[in-house]
Amino acid sequence: MVKVGIVGGTGYTGVELLRLLARHPQASLQTITSRAEAGIPVSTLFPNLRGSVDLAFADPKDAPLAQCDVVFFATPNGVCMHQARELLASGVRVVDLAADFRIKDIAAWETWYGMKHACPELVAEAVYGLPEVNRDAIRTSRLIANPGCYPTAVQLGFLPLLQSAVVDTDSLIADAKSGVSGAGRKAEVHTLFSEASDNFKAYGVAGHRHLPEISQGLSAMAGKDLALTFVPHLTPMIRGIHATLYARLNKAVDLQSLYEQCYASEPFVDVQPAGSHPDTRSVRGANTCRIAVHQPQGRDVVVVLSVIDNLVKGAAGQAVQNMNIMFDLPEATGLESLALLP
Amino acid sequence: MVKVGIVGGTGYTGVELLRLLARHPQASLQTITSRAEAGIPVSTLFPNLRGSVDLAFADPKDAPLAQCDVVFFATPNGVCMHQARELLASGVRVVDLAADFRIKDIAAWETWYGMKHACPELVAEAVYGLPEVNRDAIRTSRLIANPGCYPTAVQLGFLPLLQSAVVDTDSLIADAKSGVSGAGRKAEVHTLFSEASDNFKAYGVAGHRHLPEISQGLSAMAGKDLALTFVPHLTPMIRGIHATLYARLNKAVDLQSLYEQCYASEPFVDVQPAGSHPDTRSVRGANTCRIAVHQPQGRDVVVVLSVIDNLVKGAAGQAVQNMNIMFDLPEATGLESLALLP
Amino acid sequence: MVKVGIVGGTGYTGVELLRLLARHPQASLQTITSRAEAGIPVSTLFPNLRGSVDLAFADPKDAPLAQCDVVFFATPNGVCMHQARELLASGVRVVDLAADFRIKDIAAWETWYGMKHACPELVAEAVYGLPEVNRDAIRTSRLIANPGCYPTAVQLGFLPLLQSAVVDTDSLIADAKSGVSGAGRKAEVHTLFSEASDNFKAYGVAGHRHLPEISQGLSAMAGKDLALTFVPHLTPMIRGIHATLYARLNKAVDLQSLYEQCYASEPFVDVQPAGSHPDTRSVRGANTCRIAVHQPQGRDVVVVLSVIDNLVKGAAGQAVQNMNIMFDLPEATGLESLALLP
Amino acid sequence: MVKVGIVGGTGYTGVELLRLLARHPQASLQTITSRAEAGIPVSTLFPNLRGSVDLAFADPKDAPLAQCDVVFFATPNGVCMHQARELLASGVRVVDLAADFRIKDIAAWETWYGMKHACPELVAEAVYGLPEVNRDAIRTSRLIANPGCYPTAVQLGFLPLLQSAVVDTDSLIADAKSGVSGAGRKAEVHTLFSEASDNFKAYGVAGHRHLPEISQGLSAMAGKDLALTFVPHLTPMIRGIHATLYARLNKAVDLQSLYEQCYASEPFVDVQPAGSHPDTRSVRGANTCRIAVHQPQGRDVVVVLSVIDNLVKGAAGQAVQNMNIMFDLPEATGLESLALLP
Repeated sequence: MVKVGIVGGTGYTGVELLRLLARHPQASLQTITSRAEAGIPVSTLFPNLRGSVDLAFADPKDAPLAQCDVVFFATPNGVCMHQARELLASGVRVVDLAADFRIKDIAAWETWYGMKHACPELVAEAVYGLPEVNRDAIRTSRLIANPGCYPTAVQLGFLPLLQSAVVDTDSLIADAKSGVSGAGRKAEVHTLFSEASDNFKAYGVAGHRHLPEISQGLSAMAGKDLALTFVPHLTPMIRGIHATLYARLNKAVDLQSLYEQCYASEPFVDVQPAGSHPDTRSVRGANTCRIAVHQPQGRDVVVVLSVIDNLVKGAAGQAVQNMNIMFDLPEATGLESLALLP
Repeated sequence: MVKVGIVGGTGYTGVELLRLLARHPQASLQTITSRAEAGIPVSTLFPNLRGSVDLAFADPKDAPLAQCDVVFFATPNGVCMHQARELLASGVRVVDLAADFRIKDIAAWETWYGMKHACPELVAEAVYGLPEVNRDAIRTSRLIANPGCYPTAVQLGFLPLLQSAVVDTDSLIADAKSGVSGAGRKAEVHTLFSEASDNFKAYGVAGHRHLPEISQGLSAMAGKDLALTFVPHLTPMIRGIHATLYARLNKAVDLQSLYEQCYASEPFVDVQPAGSHPDTRSVRGANTCRIAVHQPQGRDVVVVLSVIDNLVKGAAGQAVQNMNIMFDLPEATGLESLALLP
Repeated sequence: MVKVGIVGGTGYTGVELLRLLARHPQASLQTITSRAEAGIPVSTLFPNLRGSVDLAFADPKDAPLAQCDVVFFATPNGVCMHQARELLASGVRVVDLAADFRIKDIAAWETWYGMKHACPELVAEAVYGLPEVNRDAIRTSRLIANPGCYPTAVQLGFLPLLQSAVVDTDSLIADAKSGVSGAGRKAEVHTLFSEASDNFKAYGVAGHRHLPEISQGLSAMAGKDLALTFVPHLTPMIRGIHATLYARLNKAVDLQSLYEQCYASEPFVDVQPAGSHPDTRSVRGANTCRIAVHQPQGRDVVVVLSVIDNLVKGAAGQAVQNMNIMFDLPEATGLESLALLP
Repeated sequence: MVKVGIVGGTGYTGVELLRLLARHPQASLQTITSRAEAGIPVSTLFPNLRGSVDLAFADPKDAPLAQCDVVFFATPNGVCMHQARELLASGVRVVDLAADFRIKDIAAWETWYGMKHACPELVAEAVYGLPEVNRDAIRTSRLIANPGCYPTAVQLGFLPLLQSAVVDTDSLIADAKSGVSGAGRKAEVHTLFSEASDNFKAYGVAGHRHLPEISQGLSAMAGKDLALTFVPHLTPMIRGIHATLYARLNKAVDLQSLYEQCYASEPFVDVQPAGSHPDTRSVRGANTCRIAVHQPQGRDVVVVLSVIDNLVKGAAGQAVQNMNIMFDLPEATGLESLALLP
């Protein structure tokens, strides 16, 4: 049994980790911390866990994190970087679901996230936890930077095109739509039901924090710098990301075969039949990314549709997938539940 | 392994049965029939099943139903009664998720459902599959009438009050709210997104088919006839039933204790702490009924709040629970998944 | 032209007042105040007003409220009572959309609202602004307590029954469902989209602030004390209240005629045809209350369905209706827009 | 007063026409036809109209369409082309809200719409009713092809760029998101609440009927053929279109000024301040198109955000705007209502 701790479990990635880990046959949940909610049973905040998770939130200073095999940080950006060094020194492996270790360029990170990095030396060591790209490195890593939700959907969508170098890299477009849970469980006006329901809007067109993360990943796939236009949109649904990707083909290629071969052995990427339009509900609550690829009217523009559940494959599910890889468990352990539809 | 067949799997109770049975460790799905969709892979209609359920819909005339241990009917009302006799004769046990065997009074059934009953002799034999009331009878039954969604939420909410005879039985009120999936997957105008979203309405106030089913069950609990006013409402959510129940107390009683004791050993009924307001999402995708009991301002009116997922505890989950009981499996087998929240 | 001021226009009742008054042919909007947003154009917060309302929020201390004919308070509870005395002394008429002047029993008000009343002497003078009950008093009043949203729907639904004394008054039940905008535009977790969407729950069963307001109104109609059980529910829609009301008939009466006659001359109450189920969207954005009355199975329980838009007939629209009455304008002036459907 | 008839008023564009025309001070609604609903009061289908529209649906063969000044066709594609010739001959002006007269290339129309055109000679005469492009021609036209919803949002978004020839025309992208009402009021499974709610998907990537309409309009603006990739998406909201447009700049230009100047005198196009992200609810129920223009990171890609209400500026509102122009009424007559927010 893998002994697991969670730091900061009061947000949506925290409750999602709990939902998955409570039924994970090889994980033993030791502690979950929250300064603000210390002493409160987890099931008071998240009634879906009543009867299944008996823990109360622990004060961070009392929590036996150092006795865990792995600790997940389901915290805001900038928390994990202050605690990772000490945990790693205790032999605990760390998975950060926030952004502290995602960007290799420290100066870029500090600009986009508006704070000084507390342990830049660990950034180099951290492995970006996208199994479809970095599975081997994840296996032996002690520090995982779990990818963001948009970056997961966009990178998995572009990967076959960039690896095979069949598209121009100076005009990539990612038009991405996210459910509102992507904004977290903070009380804010713009994510109130009465603001976000029955409404649709773009945001952050001038620049979103996931842009440098995506660009870094795509550049690594392409082996060169590239230019990406990334436009996120807030969509009136709870969960789900739908990335609609556009690129210009520079050679003839059988796109369907390219995608099917690229992901043939991946347990959590499902290439849809030709002509498909995956919907976000087909992955609701599941760790799957479903992808379809189109070439409208046979012209030189490729359109990729990539959907995930932002809280699962885009956060907690991928974190558990990474844990499974790190501890040599079958990769799908605890992640077998099917999407809830309708 | 229990060999399972499903008749009529193209609706929401059908896909929900598939979602649950595909991950049930003791069930082996043999066949699923649909005349209209014969030959089509199940996952074409329900993409959440892609990669997990490889069956195609079978033509009813070709399906090996007689070789199954149990057959679920996820069909419209009036189908199972035409096929149950033959299947039972073959030694197959039958669970009807529709209403054919729910009402013991054949004449009443024929009035409310507008058709002649095809096998009234089996109605007497059929066991009403509410485990909290009829567990022992379910165990040995070969024909289960799986309860309706409203009836499940309302009966579980009233049960402790009626068993203990602490309320007037001539003025019971059930104000029930259902998600739109309760209306099924038929193409109809009033359940279109643009009609049902951002909207709320009552329906069937003059009389709803679930009224005689509920009244029959409540009367059995009370040991006498009673008068129930039942008002269903269409609520802009996909899944979930919230029954708000009102009754007049005729003696002093510790309501919280009454409910906790009644359901102390039930695996799928969760009595909430005093003062609680269970929300429907706390059971989304789960087989749990959560109940809270209130006595506002200490007056003689008891208010019960009872929530279920209409497709799980109100349909497919309860059917699997019944199967588990019928085949001496641990009652929660295959029903352990936690509710999806948010 | 009636010169109008608004105090505290950053919430949903504020923007709704602006939407209505911007197109009111006899109202001239002079100023709208907000301490927090002073200097910010109204249309920055509420982009639907761009091009139609050019005002910026004014600092309360600079706003020419004393030069207005009428001032609306679209503020939290407890604000108007501190400013009403001075404005009235300046000859300005006041409409409070909050609760400061709704409850005649000062001690009860202070208990339910948790604060000391700042000007109890005005409570007696204030007229409760439900035109269907108090039209004549409204006409000459200088201080209007605009009714709450639940109280409007519930009182209009019960009025014909209580005025005609055809129901028991010791067992009234109001099961009410509100859209999320009823909770206002405050940033709170429980009204986030990801919490309130695809979900349904009761709240405040032990006691809600609208209970004493409703009871006061119903008692006045009945001419005696009465017992009401009031259970509000949070519904996943933006606007709308649906009150489902239950009462026990104590004499035979033609309910349909009773309702039609009671409201025959009311411009904003629409009694639906017998057998109807009004939906909330039929009044979305409109100042109408639509009511249907049922007697299920001909028994002695009457069920009333009453729907309003909580922000219009339940707040801003009713406030404008009151203004029209106060200034001898045709009562529907500026309130003619039809409900938005779908 | 303009005497108005409506053919086929049982869909969403029909009810929206009725909502607008019922309050239009210069329009007099003479008749509305529906074969299926003949004799049924309009308000039975659309309860928001109760008390305001007293008409019943007329049988088409009895309706006094020839006595009208203008007849709107709110019918499926392929209806107007069979009746337009006769009405025009009677001196009635015709506005078709369907697609019969939108595409000048008859062969292309027949391919995309899958039927033979019944009166190709009128296609040449018909004026495409986008006032911002064709106002003068609309004024004197007797046959208006009212634009589709996607085409309105996309064309208004691209117009300034194409008129000024500042972008490449071989790589235009329109990623468009529509509320579900865009699919109409037909009973279909994929637009059921339980299918379309809490879900997001692309559709018609291989080719959508609005593509040739948009391409035709954009080509006319650019003065040459161009290549457009158009991907529509189904969004879980009732009303609203959000078009996110991408183009590659081929010269330096002050985009904000370009847009502001282009639309300076347009009553129904609102260019947002620089850096804005218009949301669809800011035009809910209103005839406005709100547009923002961005140049992310100062690179050579321009991103345009264009929002409309698909039923108003995308259908019925634009039809009324066209009527106002045709009959020399002030262009905003009957279209002054502000968007409903929240």
